[in-house]
Amino acid sequence: MKKARISRKGVPPKQTARQEILRSSAFSKTAAILAETGRGFYARGWVLGTSGNFSAVISREPLRLAITSSGLDKGSLTPAQFLEVDGAVNVVRGSGCPSAEALLHVAIVRGVGAGAVLHTHSVWSTVLSGSHASQGGIALEGYEMLKGLEGVRTHKHREWLPILENSQDMVELAERVSKTLRESPGIHGFLLREHGLYTWGAGLQEAKRHVEILEFLMEVLVRSGAAQSA
Amino acid sequence: MKKARISRKGVPPKQTARQEILRSSAFSKTAAILAETGRGFYARGWVLGTSGNFSAVISREPLRLAITSSGLDKGSLTPAQFLEVDGAVNVVRGSGCPSAEALLHVAIVRGVGAGAVLHTHSVWSTVLSGSHASQGGIALEGYEMLKGLEGVRTHKHREWLPILENSQDMVELAERVSKTLRESPGIHGFLLREHGLYTWGAGLQEAKRHVEILEFLMEVLVRSGAAQSA
Amino acid sequence: MKKARISRKGVPPKQTARQEILRSSAFSKTAAILAETGRGFYARGWVLGTSGNFSAVISREPLRLAITSSGLDKGSLTPAQFLEVDGAVNVVRGSGCPSAEALLHVAIVRGVGAGAVLHTHSVWSTVLSGSHASQGGIALEGYEMLKGLEGVRTHKHREWLPILENSQDMVELAERVSKTLRESPGIHGFLLREHGLYTWGAGLQEAKRHVEILEFLMEVLVRSGAAQSA
Amino acid sequence: MKKARISRKGVPPKQTARQEILRSSAFSKTAAILAETGRGFYARGWVLGTSGNFSAVISREPLRLAITSSGLDKGSLTPAQFLEVDGAVNVVRGSGCPSAEALLHVAIVRGVGAGAVLHTHSVWSTVLSGSHASQGGIALEGYEMLKGLEGVRTHKHREWLPILENSQDMVELAERVSKTLRESPGIHGFLLREHGLYTWGAGLQEAKRHVEILEFLMEVLVRSGAAQSA
Repeated sequence: MKKARISRKGVPPKQTARQEILRSSAFSKTAAILAETGRGFYARGWVLGTSGNFSAVISREPLRLAITSSGLDKGSLTPAQFLEVDGAVNVVRGSGCPSAEALLHVAIVRGVGAGAVLHTHSVWSTVLSGSHASQGGIALEGYEMLKGLEGVRTHKHREWLPILENSQDMVELAERVSKTLRESPGIHGFLLREHGLYTWGAGLQEAKRHVEILEFLMEVLVRSGAAQSA
Repeated sequence: MKKARISRKGVPPKQTARQEILRSSAFSKTAAILAETGRGFYARGWVLGTSGNFSAVISREPLRLAITSSGLDKGSLTPAQFLEVDGAVNVVRGSGCPSAEALLHVAIVRGVGAGAVLHTHSVWSTVLSGSHASQGGIALEGYEMLKGLEGVRTHKHREWLPILENSQDMVELAERVSKTLRESPGIHGFLLREHGLYTWGAGLQEAKRHVEILEFLMEVLVRSGAAQSA
Repeated sequence: MKKARISRKGVPPKQTARQEILRSSAFSKTAAILAETGRGFYARGWVLGTSGNFSAVISREPLRLAITSSGLDKGSLTPAQFLEVDGAVNVVRGSGCPSAEALLHVAIVRGVGAGAVLHTHSVWSTVLSGSHASQGGIALEGYEMLKGLEGVRTHKHREWLPILENSQDMVELAERVSKTLRESPGIHGFLLREHGLYTWGAGLQEAKRHVEILEFLMEVLVRSGAAQSA
Repeated sequence: MKKARISRKGVPPKQTARQEILRSSAFSKTAAILAETGRGFYARGWVLGTSGNFSAVISREPLRLAITSSGLDKGSLTPAQFLEVDGAVNVVRGSGCPSAEALLHVAIVRGVGAGAVLHTHSVWSTVLSGSHASQGGIALEGYEMLKGLEGVRTHKHREWLPILENSQDMVELAERVSKTLRESPGIHGFLLREHGLYTWGAGLQEAKRHVEILEFLMEVLVRSGAAQSA
């Protein structure tokens, strides 16, 4: 309750109460879809060992995200395991700690206006982000599957997937993420070196599609021999 | 309703009403099987990221196809997400847009008299259609699995799987597909470069079997080192 | 009914009636387990495209097998799709045609006294039986998993997995299978070139274990680079 | 009953009765979770062909483990298939034989104070433990996934995964395991050559996480070309 009140500062009570009811309902629905999405990713081996985290915007003004709490087995992910956090990653609903990487989610939501941010941690992205680290990223070009990325109209599109050095200093890393998003407008995701993929979308369905497309294309590259030749 | 009337031009009302009842029933049954088939392909990773599309003939005279509408997540595909289209790809039942690739389905149905057309988009076909593009196709020979292709009686059969350059101009591509079908009689499928597989059958069960066989054989080729040596 | 009578020649009616009840019950139970086993193999991609066939002995004297009928999608295999055949592969229960390969099942049951015979058709066996054909077989040695093969007590065991040339002449192939079983006593399975694995067991559970073990070890060999270096 | 009495020596009857009730309840809950975990590993192909075994500590004083009995199909593992054994691997609850490898579970529980021990037998560990045997182990370094190992705080951590020669003499092997645990403090698992992975945790959830992490990292190494270059 105390935390909820903090977010009401200077807002007339009635409007807030109504907003709160709407937000609570949006939070429940979003957490349910995120949990189902996460269990599906676990089945594909993309978020083993409590890796991965998922978020979606509940409200923009003030900024509120539904996000996985830290250290969960994604194979049995439930809606009750989601937190609502504000733009400074304070928990305003639910119990548990947000992942340290919640700062990256906020940076992406602010940097590109995303409505959902999904982080997977697959074998393919781990392999490729290691083998291609010295090149600073991976170019994806000529694949029909690229057309599934929002705004792309032809397989001749060239998608640049930047690779950022991994770090345990999330404040510093969030700044590098923000910088990357400013300097590479139009990208649909990036890799953290030997860590995994971050991608996003206007909504959850779009973000999920982007995960599937980018994971698919990374698998294609590894199976085409890219990891060995890099 | 308006669209349905357009298709009734010059046909006696009674006959049309009866035909319509039969067609409506056939459409429902077909859409249900196509949806189940599509969810199975998604589970295998063959139609990720809204890729892939599936169709089956509902009537020949006039030509009517049940076909996936565009942009669907195949992991949760339902019968309600199918459209009925005529030979010019006008929607005569259901809501939504047919995929731009519906023109290829019609070209295949007309070119080889297929009763069902399935398009998958696997890692294996993406890798092989890239590595073998300069050879214009892939030869499959000596495999017992070939006997599962309709009309093939021995593993000594040589199946040619043509690779067509990918394109976003579907009218032009449909013409090339028709030309390929005329010039390579007896083939059971073809690849679009770095895009995926098209195969077909007299009915849905046969088309599904052809998908499994051709995807299997492409996986065999990649795992045998074909992608690297091409 | 007519076929059932043929098998009663010279046997007192009462005994036969009782035997028939027992056999009918054994057939139903066996078909149910075989069907479940087959659907599991399909899920792993070991019997795609109607490939694969499965049998188990219902009675020895006279010889009766429950066996898959020909051309079935193993992903939806049901007990009703099994036939009971005699030692000459005549159908004595159920409708449909036995697979041409039923002759190989009978040859194995007679040659090694197996109680169940399972034939899978995986990517791994297709790749390896092609790459190692000139060597006439594959040696498996040093693997702990070998201990799961009946009668093997140490990982130091050397298992020889013969590779037979594939053929569409099942009478000729069945003779070569019988010859291989005589000349290589103690083997637990064999490969048909670019076709797949045959293995067996005293009972169904043992045969299923042998499939899992041999498929596992073939996957290990391919992933260790055996297909390229052969 | 006789075995249960042996464990009561010198303990007042009432306390024992209460302890027994608690232990019986703990055993049931633990066996249910272990069975579910095992079926999940089977689905991923990590414990095919009756390979693998799983245990968890039920009481420390006296030492009691819930452990899989020998020779089970892990795809249909049930709580009823677990045994309770004491520190000398005598069965004190349930019917069946404990795996010969139960001695290794006891050695690990005693050596590092583990609360759960999980042994998987994947393709990845079989390939890598063969290719890296001459190096005596595998170094894992630079991977974010390492942070999921208990006590690890950064991807810069270097994890050493020792490889022990395989043996059928479990007393001798258990001694080598104990020696390895003494000489390599802080490790989270080890491999038996061409056999598989042993890992553990304070509890079952932690041990399961360690399986997923170590299996993931071994898959990454093989797909990065480590098996060929070793």
